[in-house]
Amino acid sequence: MTSTPTPLAGLRVIDWTHVLAGPFAGYQLGLLGAEVIRIERADGDDMIRAKGLDAELTALGLGETFVTQGAGKRSLAIDARDPRAKQALSELIGSADVLLENFRPGKLAALGFDPQQLIARHPQLVVCSITGFGPASDRRAYDHVIQAASGLMAANADRDGKPQRVGFPLVDYAVGQQAALAVMSALYRRDRPSGEARTRGEWLQVSMMGAALTLMAPTYAGPLVSGMEMPRSASTAFSGSPLSGTFEVADGQLAIVCNAADQAKGLLNALRETGTDASLLSSLHEAAELRDVPRAQALLGQALGGRTTAEWDALLTRHGVPATPVVRPAQAAAQMARDWPHVELPLPNGARRVPVPGIGFTSSEPLTPSLRAPVRRGADTRRLLAEAGLEASAIAAMLADGAASEPSD
Amino acid sequence: MTSTPTPLAGLRVIDWTHVLAGPFAGYQLGLLGAEVIRIERADGDDMIRAKGLDAELTALGLGETFVTQGAGKRSLAIDARDPRAKQALSELIGSADVLLENFRPGKLAALGFDPQQLIARHPQLVVCSITGFGPASDRRAYDHVIQAASGLMAANADRDGKPQRVGFPLVDYAVGQQAALAVMSALYRRDRPSGEARTRGEWLQVSMMGAALTLMAPTYAGPLVSGMEMPRSASTAFSGSPLSGTFEVADGQLAIVCNAADQAKGLLNALRETGTDASLLSSLHEAAELRDVPRAQALLGQALGGRTTAEWDALLTRHGVPATPVVRPAQAAAQMARDWPHVELPLPNGARRVPVPGIGFTSSEPLTPSLRAPVRRGADTRRLLAEAGLEASAIAAMLADGAASEPSD
Repeated sequence: MTSTPTPLAGLRVIDWTHVLAGPFAGYQLGLLGAEVIRIERADGDDMIRAKGLDAELTALGLGETFVTQGAGKRSLAIDARDPRAKQALSELIGSADVLLENFRPGKLAALGFDPQQLIARHPQLVVCSITGFGPASDRRAYDHVIQAASGLMAANADRDGKPQRVGFPLVDYAVGQQAALAVMSALYRRDRPSGEARTRGEWLQVSMMGAALTLMAPTYAGPLVSGMEMPRSASTAFSGSPLSGTFEVADGQLAIVCNAADQAKGLLNALRETGTDASLLSSLHEAAELRDVPRAQALLGQALGGRTTAEWDALLTRHGVPATPVVRPAQAAAQMARDWPHVELPLPNGARRVPVPGIGFTSSEPLTPSLRAPVRRGADTRRLLAEAGLEASAIAAMLADGAASEPSD
Repeated sequence: MTSTPTPLAGLRVIDWTHVLAGPFAGYQLGLLGAEVIRIERADGDDMIRAKGLDAELTALGLGETFVTQGAGKRSLAIDARDPRAKQALSELIGSADVLLENFRPGKLAALGFDPQQLIARHPQLVVCSITGFGPASDRRAYDHVIQAASGLMAANADRDGKPQRVGFPLVDYAVGQQAALAVMSALYRRDRPSGEARTRGEWLQVSMMGAALTLMAPTYAGPLVSGMEMPRSASTAFSGSPLSGTFEVADGQLAIVCNAADQAKGLLNALRETGTDASLLSSLHEAAELRDVPRAQALLGQALGGRTTAEWDALLTRHGVPATPVVRPAQAAAQMARDWPHVELPLPNGARRVPVPGIGFTSSEPLTPSLRAPVRRGADTRRLLAEAGLEASAIAAMLADGAASEPSD
């Protein structure tokens, strides 16, 4: 019995992208089994390689943010303006199933790789362009800019109603995920059984703005469907239920959501079990029935204050109430690191074994191959140029004159 | 010349899901061309049908949140505990390519539809289960609970460092997106050319916790790779650049990101052009060079205060600085509504034409079919039971005794 291949085994992805969104999209496809070749500059490290918390890693161009989305990828460091480099890139793109790029609109064509021409020449090719505000806008964008322009910051306003950036680059990651979905849909259409031979490839356009809008659809639902705005809900749950919210307890904060009658009943039972004062309980019950959110929240806070997050966690879980302590990212990370794939970073002071993000779902069939550790920029330059058909002497010349590069030590 | 079919044309998805994440996953597949059949209760509306801002819509079970992810779907309202209903569900699942479900772990098996048995019986079937904390936990979860447990709230802390829920259900949507990606990867593997016949289906497990962790990978990068925590960055950009942030101007807020040297230069040029005081400019330049973030931010705020968002928007864009006004969701929604598909909701007072979210990306090939407007619960009950092989008399009996239902008027 042969083993089932991973979903994208045997497919080749050219990841000609920068910063967060594009590399994350390529990483997702690599986690599903594709061979991913990262095209990098010959003359310097991308921001996510060069910036980081750990000096030893950033000195090698292996900043933490790169490490979390660089595993499994090969690296070709090349000056795309050089004619020999263009030739090699043409060969590699022609051999690929997918080309990911997030240059500014028009830049890839200016480099000699017009997506329209690429898909005309290579019927098997899926080109996925990731932009900020869409292909028609050359307006420059980063995660923060899109958070502001999409209404996301306003939806995440603080207590005083002041718009606040969500404290991590969620738009970059959301658009990376959306790009992976877009590519999968195009690959599916390409390879599903059909009577006709394909005469052209497919060019996908994914934008950060589009991804933000998709993620926020429930917020737009009111204005778009009924012309009414949803009330702001940062302090409570999105449902606005009177017994849902974030509460201060003895040693931290507790998040509780009671969206259903049995959950509210469970919560009241749990409070009763801890000896909560009967009159407080009946006031709480009444406030919840009347959907008096501020009063219910204040009373519930009072009832919860005396015990720890761990005590409430156990008690509320036993009573079927969705609740959990509010934890720090590092705590969550430590828990999840057990399940994520691990790679060994070869450092001068010895190898460091670290967890890297997994695809985020599991299957009854194999999904993710074992991953090579993230490599330094240009680690595969020689081999990839050879695979692209260049002679050893030509490769040596390119490395000598800076049209290509590899790690110096 | 025949027209290219949409990516999932001809595929059937059974969307046996509740609340936000599952229905959103089904909606994504429908936007890519799949036929989506929603299984609903015979005796009442799901929360997203029944709750909403507009009384006319909620009275019909067409609450805004349902409308934003209900287009294109058929609806079968049925009591899954009834033996005739089970029979019909078996037929429909057997005819499907995908079954989406987000019951609590074990519940679907208890209803007689064990995913293990389903994929053993139907080699073509992809079952995708969406859970809160993963299949091994029966801990109940909603978006808010997962935000707390994943560290997402802590990463989104307010000015005082107090964890704050992101003000919209982003985990629900992120996991819906991830489920769509998971399903596409399984369908791709199923249908790609291969020498071997498939002997079993595939069961995917997607969790809200997994989706939150994927979306937050950059935040975990520090702790996981280097054992160091990233500094909190809600008020500035994720890059922590001294000239990036959110600033009060004459009529609102402006988001600016300067991650590159040419962007910083563009910003200073723009300020110079508006006649900013030379000593303020040189102090700002100095603070930025020294990476003195608080001082740079204060000075920049001072320099920006006198003009409006529209003025800065035009000026900074011209100078190549990524910047944009911070807008309200309703403003963003109005802009994007132009590009999204529109459907007509048939209401007693006349049809209402509304935009519904699109797939979020575009392609050189057709992606999304024209969408039927979201229907009331059970609108397709008779027809779907007939397609499942039931006689007209059996269907009438089920409708009469409550094992199935359809809209009353």
